[in-house]
Amino acid sequence: MPEAGPRTSHLVRVRPVKEDAMRTVNIGLCGLGTVGGGTVRIINRHHDDFLRHAGVDLRIARVCSRHDGMAKELGLYNIWTSDYRDIVNDPDIDIVVELIGGTETAKSVVIDSLNAGKNVVTANKALMASCGHDIFEAADAHDVEVAFEASVGGGIPIIEPLKHSLVSNEITSVLGIVNGTTNYMLTLMDEEGMSYEAALKKAQENGFAEANPTADVDGYDAAAKIAILASIAFNSRVTIDDVPTSGIRSIAPVDLEIAHQMGYVIKLLAAAHRTEGGIEAYVQPAMLPLTHQLAHVKGVMNAIYVTGDAVGDTMFYGPGAGSGPAASAVVGDIIEVARRVSSGTKALVGCTCTDHLPMVKAEDTVARFYIRMRVQDKPGSLAATADAFGSCNVSIATMVQRTSDVDMAEIAYTTHASRVKDVSDAIGVIKTLKQVEDVCTVIRVED
Amino acid sequence: MPEAGPRTSHLVRVRPVKEDAMRTVNIGLCGLGTVGGGTVRIINRHHDDFLRHAGVDLRIARVCSRHDGMAKELGLYNIWTSDYRDIVNDPDIDIVVELIGGTETAKSVVIDSLNAGKNVVTANKALMASCGHDIFEAADAHDVEVAFEASVGGGIPIIEPLKHSLVSNEITSVLGIVNGTTNYMLTLMDEEGMSYEAALKKAQENGFAEANPTADVDGYDAAAKIAILASIAFNSRVTIDDVPTSGIRSIAPVDLEIAHQMGYVIKLLAAAHRTEGGIEAYVQPAMLPLTHQLAHVKGVMNAIYVTGDAVGDTMFYGPGAGSGPAASAVVGDIIEVARRVSSGTKALVGCTCTDHLPMVKAEDTVARFYIRMRVQDKPGSLAATADAFGSCNVSIATMVQRTSDVDMAEIAYTTHASRVKDVSDAIGVIKTLKQVEDVCTVIRVED
Repeated sequence: MPEAGPRTSHLVRVRPVKEDAMRTVNIGLCGLGTVGGGTVRIINRHHDDFLRHAGVDLRIARVCSRHDGMAKELGLYNIWTSDYRDIVNDPDIDIVVELIGGTETAKSVVIDSLNAGKNVVTANKALMASCGHDIFEAADAHDVEVAFEASVGGGIPIIEPLKHSLVSNEITSVLGIVNGTTNYMLTLMDEEGMSYEAALKKAQENGFAEANPTADVDGYDAAAKIAILASIAFNSRVTIDDVPTSGIRSIAPVDLEIAHQMGYVIKLLAAAHRTEGGIEAYVQPAMLPLTHQLAHVKGVMNAIYVTGDAVGDTMFYGPGAGSGPAASAVVGDIIEVARRVSSGTKALVGCTCTDHLPMVKAEDTVARFYIRMRVQDKPGSLAATADAFGSCNVSIATMVQRTSDVDMAEIAYTTHASRVKDVSDAIGVIKTLKQVEDVCTVIRVED
Repeated sequence: MPEAGPRTSHLVRVRPVKEDAMRTVNIGLCGLGTVGGGTVRIINRHHDDFLRHAGVDLRIARVCSRHDGMAKELGLYNIWTSDYRDIVNDPDIDIVVELIGGTETAKSVVIDSLNAGKNVVTANKALMASCGHDIFEAADAHDVEVAFEASVGGGIPIIEPLKHSLVSNEITSVLGIVNGTTNYMLTLMDEEGMSYEAALKKAQENGFAEANPTADVDGYDAAAKIAILASIAFNSRVTIDDVPTSGIRSIAPVDLEIAHQMGYVIKLLAAAHRTEGGIEAYVQPAMLPLTHQLAHVKGVMNAIYVTGDAVGDTMFYGPGAGSGPAASAVVGDIIEVARRVSSGTKALVGCTCTDHLPMVKAEDTVARFYIRMRVQDKPGSLAATADAFGSCNVSIATMVQRTSDVDMAEIAYTTHASRVKDVSDAIGVIKTLKQVEDVCTVIRVED
């Protein structure tokens, strides 16, 4: 895809932009990695389009990164600095774009910029999911705005629709496939029967997983994203620490195979529900019916399924990561803020966490589960494990037994809707049984 | 779902709303049908939530409908009028909501309101797709806003994402399943093998199709919607008259069956593409690969698939019609406008049609087609029809022949990518062949 240079088309006749919208909006860009580079390229390529379409004259006034290599590559060495304070303290900068990531320097960049009266655009999920309160307080105090569409779902518009188009709804649930790495791996395991290890290796080879894949495969990336989405959807602050999280390390191809036989597919689900008692949020592998829209979201694609009291079920689908998609969201936010800055208008939407709903404790919630275990292939094994469920008030819905090795069998149960604490107790009992070698996998079943 | 009365929750602690955001915003509502009733119910139910979450104090100040029945039912008889001018001329009204439909009275309501300096929210696709230019000119002249999220895709946020989150993209195509009636019918024909007539009857019985189904089954409803979406996506005015349209009347279960065998599903596709020569738009039945996200959109659900140069492929899915979904979008627009009105801010986004791209003539475009015909079941029939394609420069990709009745056979061809004019010429020739009884169906094949 050709990306170089400003783009003009002989087909376009320009309608003159109103005089009062012509003020240049100066951008200070912190972080020149993949997304930073993509952001620069979009603004270079479409500067004149944005002027014509949105009435904003964007100018990258200053860039900051630790090393100068990318600045040179992008032809921005003359405005490069390695000290973010050169941006924060520059009185001409209107919008600071934070694309550093993490919660240390990035937090200083964001908070210092807001305190300096500058608007902020960030793609930083970890920061927004852990320090949202402080950030919005600073923004509110200085009557500036923080926009963070790129922090969830890459290029998928989801934060803006929740804050605007769907604001008329009481949102009842948000279900997301918001981590492309794990969705890519689960798709390979599902469609090609790959092991977890082989799928991880392929994801790493293709640049979809880090050398240290913890943040993705253990669900922390997804937890930050669902915390952000839940905060907006339910108008109540949810932080990453509020989200019980388990990842996909224990999933084996046999689980995906059994899921298919039962009419399900396994996805790493980031979920948040509004319940009578407050907000329930979690990240956990889940079986979704093959008829569910989320079941068709494959590979590195993401999707967020939002249910509201008026609208019913909606879904937002697209690429969850990558230079182009993330930069699409970053530049979308920049243009939104720039429209305001250009016209001298204050931010109309600040922090949306006006309510203070309690979090529901995971153990008090009710759900269906799939539980696979390895047991001795002898009389009594099945009865002993089944007894354990019964003794903890967990009622069994289905059971599949397979012989795995000599003398060992695998049993996969699904339960009826049960208290999470009871299921957890039953698993505790099962693990102590002499017939049981291991409880391998615990997966939610969503209907 | 309980909907009556304002709703409070013991879980919610209210954060005080800023003083300067407390001005009441007065709404005049024209049209008290299904969507009008839904709009009133949402505002009644969530008034306090909107005050707390969005800082807007909405008040339905006046309602207008031909008869007073619905006003009485909603407890609004004291503010009812049968003359829309009572609303347009009321100096206290800030936002006029037009839910009458059609392009006659509705046009007067919208234009008169804008000329009276009032903001307008409308769900009227026919009006926006035919009179968009006049409407935006009036809005621009009086520095007010017209919002129309509900005109396409019911409750699905799509117009706002195109104008905001995705504004950083050069949109290359918009593909929509935007008519719930025909999608419901095609789903029945596909999954239950129903005939067109039986599917229409069932749609009518379930309230998904009108007694006179023309607007839906002949594609005019979808044409209005893709005209609106294309205008925004490509920043260039497209009206309903610019959209060549064909509907689903000629589709038979055999087409869906053959489509499946080839790995496709048939949908009524509303499409708009940015091409080298300008904008190509059409509504036509199309075969979509079973692996395409749109292939999984079933029943009355709608979805819009948007591709941009930065973001790549995205999709917006949800219910395309109905009281709740449409009213969700209407009230979302009302709140957006009310946020501005409350804070005394002018509209930041007006007409987005800043460019003037030509429309590409349908006959000059290139596409693949599926063409089914009834021929005499005799030697020479196949060769004669195949020759006709060849003589018009249309190259055949696949062919399926089936015996239908005594002496008659059905032949279904798919072509390689060909000029639409050449395909059209070939069909013209085929219709004159003595071996051919009829050319039954012409369907696009999208890959």
